[in-house]
Amino acid sequence: MSDVRDEQRGRRRGGGAEARRERRRGGGQQSLRYITRKVPLYEILNEEGLALIEANADTVLEEIGIEFRDDEEALALWKAAGADVSGARVRFPKGLCRELIRTAPPVFTQAARNPERSVQIGGDATVFAPVYGPPFIRNLDEGRRYATIEDFRNFVKLAYVAPAIHHSGGTVCEPVDLPVNKRHLDMVYAHIRYSDKPFMGSVTHPERAADSVAMARLVFGDAFVDSNCVLINLINANSPMVFDETMLGALKVYARAGQATIVTPFILAGAMSPVTVAGTLTQVLAEVLAGAAFTQLVRPGAPVVFGCFASSISMQSGAPTFGTPEPSLVSFGAAQLARRLGLPFRTGGSLCGSKIADAQAAYESANTLNATVLAGTNFVLHAAGWLEGGLAAGYEKFVMDCDQIAMQQRVCEGVDLSENGQAMDAIREVGPGSHYLGCAHTQANFETAFYRSTIADNNSFEQWQAEGEKRADERANALWKTWLADYEAPALDAGVDEALQAFIAKKKESMPDAFA
Amino acid sequence: MSDVRDEQRGRRRGGGAEARRERRRGGGQQSLRYITRKVPLYEILNEEGLALIEANADTVLEEIGIEFRDDEEALALWKAAGADVSGARVRFPKGLCRELIRTAPPVFTQAARNPERSVQIGGDATVFAPVYGPPFIRNLDEGRRYATIEDFRNFVKLAYVAPAIHHSGGTVCEPVDLPVNKRHLDMVYAHIRYSDKPFMGSVTHPERAADSVAMARLVFGDAFVDSNCVLINLINANSPMVFDETMLGALKVYARAGQATIVTPFILAGAMSPVTVAGTLTQVLAEVLAGAAFTQLVRPGAPVVFGCFASSISMQSGAPTFGTPEPSLVSFGAAQLARRLGLPFRTGGSLCGSKIADAQAAYESANTLNATVLAGTNFVLHAAGWLEGGLAAGYEKFVMDCDQIAMQQRVCEGVDLSENGQAMDAIREVGPGSHYLGCAHTQANFETAFYRSTIADNNSFEQWQAEGEKRADERANALWKTWLADYEAPALDAGVDEALQAFIAKKKESMPDAFA
Repeated sequence: MSDVRDEQRGRRRGGGAEARRERRRGGGQQSLRYITRKVPLYEILNEEGLALIEANADTVLEEIGIEFRDDEEALALWKAAGADVSGARVRFPKGLCRELIRTAPPVFTQAARNPERSVQIGGDATVFAPVYGPPFIRNLDEGRRYATIEDFRNFVKLAYVAPAIHHSGGTVCEPVDLPVNKRHLDMVYAHIRYSDKPFMGSVTHPERAADSVAMARLVFGDAFVDSNCVLINLINANSPMVFDETMLGALKVYARAGQATIVTPFILAGAMSPVTVAGTLTQVLAEVLAGAAFTQLVRPGAPVVFGCFASSISMQSGAPTFGTPEPSLVSFGAAQLARRLGLPFRTGGSLCGSKIADAQAAYESANTLNATVLAGTNFVLHAAGWLEGGLAAGYEKFVMDCDQIAMQQRVCEGVDLSENGQAMDAIREVGPGSHYLGCAHTQANFETAFYRSTIADNNSFEQWQAEGEKRADERANALWKTWLADYEAPALDAGVDEALQAFIAKKKESMPDAFA
Repeated sequence: MSDVRDEQRGRRRGGGAEARRERRRGGGQQSLRYITRKVPLYEILNEEGLALIEANADTVLEEIGIEFRDDEEALALWKAAGADVSGARVRFPKGLCRELIRTAPPVFTQAARNPERSVQIGGDATVFAPVYGPPFIRNLDEGRRYATIEDFRNFVKLAYVAPAIHHSGGTVCEPVDLPVNKRHLDMVYAHIRYSDKPFMGSVTHPERAADSVAMARLVFGDAFVDSNCVLINLINANSPMVFDETMLGALKVYARAGQATIVTPFILAGAMSPVTVAGTLTQVLAEVLAGAAFTQLVRPGAPVVFGCFASSISMQSGAPTFGTPEPSLVSFGAAQLARRLGLPFRTGGSLCGSKIADAQAAYESANTLNATVLAGTNFVLHAAGWLEGGLAAGYEKFVMDCDQIAMQQRVCEGVDLSENGQAMDAIREVGPGSHYLGCAHTQANFETAFYRSTIADNNSFEQWQAEGEKRADERANALWKTWLADYEAPALDAGVDEALQAFIAKKKESMPDAFA
């Protein structure tokens, strides 16, 4: 991105440190602490509905079971725990999974290398993390193309700069220019080097999970890693009702190391689950019960999150759809099921099916995000940058979503009922037929009264016209370039950096490049 | 719009009645009944917070009071009711307004000329009505220009065609090509002639309100109008704490005729109310208490709705902002206050500050709409078509919003917990590692399982690219033209039509044109 950066620096800039501080105010490196929700939850199901779905999930576990494929150790652990194992199929006596899950913490802390950026996972906390997984990137300058490690670093930097992104995430995009068997090293290093927010480890192979833990040990020290969560890791179920070798391998590495897993049925309803909300919730709960219980078989007390990724499919094309009613209903319901199970909850984000950062993308993202937040989601992956059903990470979309999640952070603060919040003095001062613009209360609260969007144009029609009739994504294009241009890396201990680089070099030398 | 219509008819059309039916399925003339909410409300304030705001509003009414300007009759009515009247200022003994409001119905029906389209206002009902008031229109073909009566008719037709618009609305745009003192006749006539959904009357002058009632009498008959609500009418408070002569005049005409009013403080917080949410809620409640109580002084039992239009202002430009956190918090809180007062509630819609139907418009509209619906709003004005802070009605925005409100209608249906909804047979049939696409349950529920967007493109990237990389607003441009081209007017009794036209002709002859 260095040419964009230089171009940006050279153009219409000046004024030195002061101008730089001023620019920063718009995007700000003033990170917000993770959300501590002060507003109520939205709960869509009543006790009867929840109990019905729980009973059905128990039936699925008991009668149909879940497959743990190509992992003899997993099957042996389940057998020893009292499950009925037949081939890869595991059937669970009523109550076994719930009993096992009791040892998992309902709330835990994921430590960041900057302790001020450590996050609480669970309870009344909500943590926003960037998009995860896209092989493509999109921006207005280049359109859509394969992602590179340079893009990966850019998104880590943008997430570091964005005030309401509390977490550096994981595979913010897939750096396809690097060998598939080595890129995890560069990804984990980028999170450590270019950010001091908490991050995620690799899950594409047990050895890569082990490398992630090893690198975390170089940053945090062995003793700290042994007794703290420093990595949170995405373990997808292969729905319906299957966990595969790769995911189980990574899960075991992380659970054994006392690190957190997010056990997530990845659902396109209609394909990987029934076409109904209640049916999908039933299957999701059954899969999470089995997967989360398995983490506790591996190491009782290992932190585990109830994950749920649910979209619907287009009944015409089979393509996934986002921001539609059914996934919102699934999110609300799954959050309730997670709370009843006593596990932190992950779902949603700023999801959309649109290929570009247009109105479709925004409607769908906002619908998903509103449901995600009001459901009381604790860990929000894909909070910024998601385009095209997750196939592309959008630069403009990223900063647009960052604006939206900052707004949600405000919503979660709720209504200020203090004397200042009540504003009775202002009402008395102004009285009928006047206005509040100049009153003492308005002046005193001027700066912080209303959320100030970084993207929205609220100028007059005439001014907007004079400035070139820009769309939101065009303004966003300028903003992410400013963020990258103004980015300054957080300090990293030179010894730690050296140790990381040595580890990476040694690992890379130990194997040939693989590109598939 | 006739040339657009002709052009559209000529282009890539054919196949006769069958193709026409097929096209209709996308936009549909199959109107949905108003929403009967099956999902819980989102309530942001607890008992303590609500009681605090109510007590503060009582203080405002008692100590500061509300001005009823230039209306001696109103002041006399208040004096007779026991209020303290000093000039235009009315101060209310504690509890007076609440006591008066007890005669207002908590739920009522507004009749449509097609009884199947009558709507419930209040309780668990939500009714979507189009944008109200814009002097400009915008579409991709013409950009932004002043609205005409032809545009007015077009939006009435679009609202008639849109399945999830339950109400024809009022001033769907301001037909500035017609004399200001006569255009209400053409507007009311257009609602009657081009739609059979319920509609709103004129409020810009007491005589125009009287004309609206007279025209409704020609449609529904005197006896029916005397004992039923057939008009719902927007009465804005002139915040802070003022009702003016025009609004009071129209309010009295409608209340006397037993017709519904929506008493709505029109708030740009920071200008017309304090910069805080609690302060704004306090003032809104005080203003509605006074205005709604006044309707009951005029005619006990007249239907009245608790209205709240709240936006914030940009502290930089003073321009209104939409879809931001603060107005959402106000909506949630005001809905609760309305329910405690026993009045139906109006707020929100698909509000935005953007000049065009871009991502800003969509994020802001979706944020507003999600809060509007989960708050339990009964009457949603501006549900479709709003752009530029209400200055422009957007053709593309209209059909895009219609897609969104149809989704919200689905959300309000909640989770189907029937045996079919539970889908246990499907889970049993499919089992681990397979897929649900072809299973019996999926096939049986295929058509209705998921909401099908009229705007979203969920095709593959390659197909979207091959089709010209269209933005959502470009697809919407084609859709509204199809809707207008396929529009067919509902039947209107020839005698009624003749009587309406005679009434209008006579009224128009009775006065010279006025353009200001």
